[in-house]
Parts: sequence; C-alpha cells; structure tokens
Amino acid sequence: MSINQLTAAARLRVDEALAQQLMQASIEPRLAEAMRYGALLGGKRIRPFLTLNIAEICQANPDSALTAACAVECIHAYSLIHDDLPAMDDDDLRRGQPTCHVAFDQATAILAGDALQALAFKLLSADRLNQVPCPQQLQMISVLAQASGGMGMCGGQSLDLMATNKPLTEAQLQQVHRHKTGDLIAASAELGVLCGSAEAQRYRTGFATFAQRLGLAFQIQDDILDVTGSTETLGKPQGSDQQAHKSTYVQLLGLDGARQKLLSLHQQALQSLADIPYNTQRLADFSTALLTRDH
Amino acid sequence: MSINQLTAAARLRVDEALAQQLMQASIEPRLAEAMRYGALLGGKRIRPFLTLNIAEICQANPDSALTAACAVECIHAYSLIHDDLPAMDDDDLRRGQPTCHVAFDQATAILAGDALQALAFKLLSADRLNQVPCPQQLQMISVLAQASGGMGMCGGQSLDLMATNKPLTEAQLQQVHRHKTGDLIAASAELGVLCGSAEAQRYRTGFATFAQRLGLAFQIQDDILDVTGSTETLGKPQGSDQQAHKSTYVQLLGLDGARQKLLSLHQQALQSLADIPYNTQRLADFSTALLTRDH
Repeated sequence: MSINQLTAAARLRVDEALAQQLMQASIEPRLAEAMRYGALLGGKRIRPFLTLNIAEICQANPDSALTAACAVECIHAYSLIHDDLPAMDDDDLRRGQPTCHVAFDQATAILAGDALQALAFKLLSADRLNQVPCPQQLQMISVLAQASGGMGMCGGQSLDLMATNKPLTEAQLQQVHRHKTGDLIAASAELGVLCGSAEAQRYRTGFATFAQRLGLAFQIQDDILDVTGSTETLGKPQGSDQQAHKSTYVQLLGLDGARQKLLSLHQQALQSLADIPYNTQRLADFSTALLTRDH
Repeated sequence: MSINQLTAAARLRVDEALAQQLMQASIEPRLAEAMRYGALLGGKRIRPFLTLNIAEICQANPDSALTAACAVECIHAYSLIHDDLPAMDDDDLRRGQPTCHVAFDQATAILAGDALQALAFKLLSADRLNQVPCPQQLQMISVLAQASGGMGMCGGQSLDLMATNKPLTEAQLQQVHRHKTGDLIAASAELGVLCGSAEAQRYRTGFATFAQRLGLAFQIQDDILDVTGSTETLGKPQGSDQQAHKSTYVQLLGLDGARQKLLSLHQQALQSLADIPYNTQRLADFSTALLTRDH
C-alpha cells in the first residue's frame, strides 16, 4: 500500500477534528481564517498517523488520541507557517499553494503560527482527555513543549539557519535534522503511548526511538528525492536544497552512500518496532511505504 | 510606595528564576541568547507581581507560584518580541534598548518568541508544580493557552493591527485592549489562584475581574501619558500612538473623559478586591501606584 492509502483514514479523522477545533479559532475573523488555512492545507499527516496508530496499539481511548494528534499537527502547522516567512526560508509556495504570509500577510502569518502553538497546548490540557490519567496528560504537555521549543524543533530550525552556506559534518547535519524534524516526530509517537494504558508506558522509549529513526530516514529520503526526483512529482523545484546552499546527505555521502544510510536506518527503525511485544505491522508497512516513496 | 518599590521583590525573584530556567534554553547558543535577551530585558513585571501576590494570598506554595510567574512572563516576553518585528509594530527600541530582531536578526527573533512560548508550557507542566493538585495544574495550562491564543492575546493583537488607520468606537477599542493585554493580565491573576488552596478557588473569578479592570485602566493611563508625559519620562517618543494612527481613549473621550474613565475603572478594580474576604491591601496599593504613575 502507498503512504497515502495507509494514512488516508488518519488524515480524514484529523482534518475533520482540526476543522472543528478551528471553527472558533480566534475572536478576529481574518486570524481565524489564516489559522485554518495553515492547519488544513493538507500534507501527508505523518505525525497524526503515528499518534493515532501508536495510541491504538497502546489501547488508548480514540477521542483522546485524536485530540493529541490534532495538537501535534497544530505545532507542525505553526512551524511551517513561520519557516516559510521571508525572514526564515522565504518560500512562496507549499504543496503547490501560496504560503500563509502570501495568502494573507506577514503579520497575520506570525500571529496565526503563534495562535496555533497556543491551541496545541489548549487541546492537550482540555477535559476531553479525561480518560487519560492526569499525570500522563501533564507528561503529554511536557513532551510536546520540550520537543517543539528551544531544546527541540525551534533549536533545530535555528541550527539549520546558522548552517546556511556552511559545510556541515555528518554528525552536525544529523543534529540539525534530529531536532528540526525528529523531535516532533518522536513526540508524536510518545503522545500516542501517553494516551494509552499504564502497561504500554514501558514502551514509550521504544516507540520514540522508532520514530526518531524513521524521521531521520525520511529526511535522507527527502535529500535523495531532491536530486533524483522531478520538479513535477516533488511539488517543489528539483535541486532546491542545493540552491539554498544547505548541506544534504547526498552531498556528504554521495547518492549511493545516502541510499546505504537510508537502508540502514530503515532496518534500525523496523528493529525498534520488533522489540515491542505488540502488533506493530501497520507501522512497519507505513515506514516502508514512506521510505520507498518517489515523491 | 511607588510601583517599583512594590514590585521590586517580585522582579528580583522572577528575574533570578527566569535566568536559571533560561540557562539551558536551547541547543543553539545564539537562539538561547536571544531568548534570554527578550525575557530578561526588564520591565515592570506587573504580571509576575500579580501571580506571586495572589498566590501568596491564596496560600500557595511559593515555588509553584514562582514557576507560574515565570511562565506568564515567558508569554509576555514572546509577545513583545513578535510585536516589535518589522511586519508587526516595527519598533527598534524597547525600554531604551534595541529590540530583539535589531540586536539579533528577524529569524532569530521569531524563533526566540516561539521557543519562549513553548517554554511557558514546559514550565507549567513540570513536576516542580507537584504541590498543586494535578487537575488545577492542567487548568493553569488551559487558562494560559486560552488567554494567549487566538481567543485572547493573539486575537487582540490581530484586532489591533486590523484597526490601524480606522476609527474605533469605545466598545471596539475596549475589545482590542481586553484581549491584547487584559486577557494575559487576568490569566496572571488566575494562575496565582490556581496555585493556591482548594478554598481559594472560589475567588478565581473575583481576582480575574480585578485584573481585567486593572489591565484596562492601565491601558487608559498609558494613553493619557502618551499625550501628557514627556519623551524623557516615557522611554518612547511622546505622542507615538497618535503617530501610529491608532485609536486611543484620549482621542475618543478627550483628556478629561479618559481621566474619568480611568478613575471609574480604578474604583471598580478596588471594589472587586473588596469583595474577596482575604487581605488584599497590597494589591490595592499596587493598583493605586500603577494607575497614578507619571511614566
């Protein structure tokens, strides 16, 4: 099955739930519209898929898991809105659509990102998670805050900006990706576990390790596709990373080296799953579909 | 006593605690520095004063109250960093110092704001609040997220931006200020209560109402000082609000009308305090010092 087929159900559920959560997103209509625009623009919904599937594996209440998945996606959406700003990566298009600051304006885009971040924590602190034990609910908030802040995603984005036009070592490049994308992907997995049963909590690290490896492998696949894919299938100009003067795995390791590294991380990710005594077949299928995609 | 004398102890405690929380603010040193710069630049520390004092009145554990006060100040600091950006209010100076994007750069300032918001929720979800009952701790997070997001502060900032060059009615201007500054000030008060005893919880609305009235009165006083104060005592160019083509209470009500409104709100704020059967004398003194200041 393709990633899209695997994630279709998660995408549908999360889009619907997010649309509902965003119906009263702001007292100011234009800001509310920008928040919806940024959050509902689509995408693979990799993070909510992980949260929902791992929550299901961990015997979580589906409503709590859905709320957690929406929270993760709010953080992801805000980070894309801010990353696209002229002062950051300066992108006019995302998924073939005008980015938020182009469709609205910069001030609105900044505020929409800020408000989506606040919404993530509003969702995670809500009563609707009342089937999750209170200390686990607090841990969910802590995990998401840690993964998205200066020690996580924001820190990674800052490392990435500082590294523009500078050659990085493989270890440095890995640190960028680990924080810029890996930490939130790992948090998506942990949130799924934290929605789940008391017994499942012992596999939190296992699921997080799986997700970190998957996230890094995903990034390497992205670097490979940036070189081998066509602009048409990628939805962004082919070679755009090279043009942005950013270090990539292909540059550092060559195309074959990058493919080797991808394969090895893929195996390690599957191994993390194999160490968990639950049925994780769908996660394994998802990993394989994600890491062998051609766009 | 002056506001500075009244808030000196709170300022000292919060600055020290924030400096410690920000020692490991980010994996990326420049981002960490920008976060510290934005959060430790000074200011009246009105919000932490309210949190700490109300927490004390409500028999809270002082360490929990201090953590809550830091969280509120992280939100306030992030909002100032983002508001000062060229795409927003475009201010180069704050409290006589270069604003964050001038001292660093725009991308770093955006990320520093984002990471400070995440830090606020990290702090509120931490174990160090373990003397606060778990459901109250979740409510603290919910209150802060609601007050700072699209339904609160971000919504108010968006209303304010939309209102530039447009004449507002008094009701519209009040709505801007209620959300832009009032909601976070009210949340500062509520967080103090939520750190406190079970019995104190029944006065949460009372303290929040006091804080909302104080916040609005503070804004009116600000508008008055913008007209009557000198550039030297204000730390910003006198008349700067008029230059920014923003509606003010002085414009709408005239100087005497604005002073009347301020006096009336001041009385109402003191009345909210009088309805609470605790010793709130210091909050009353603080309100009076704040609302009769000349800069």
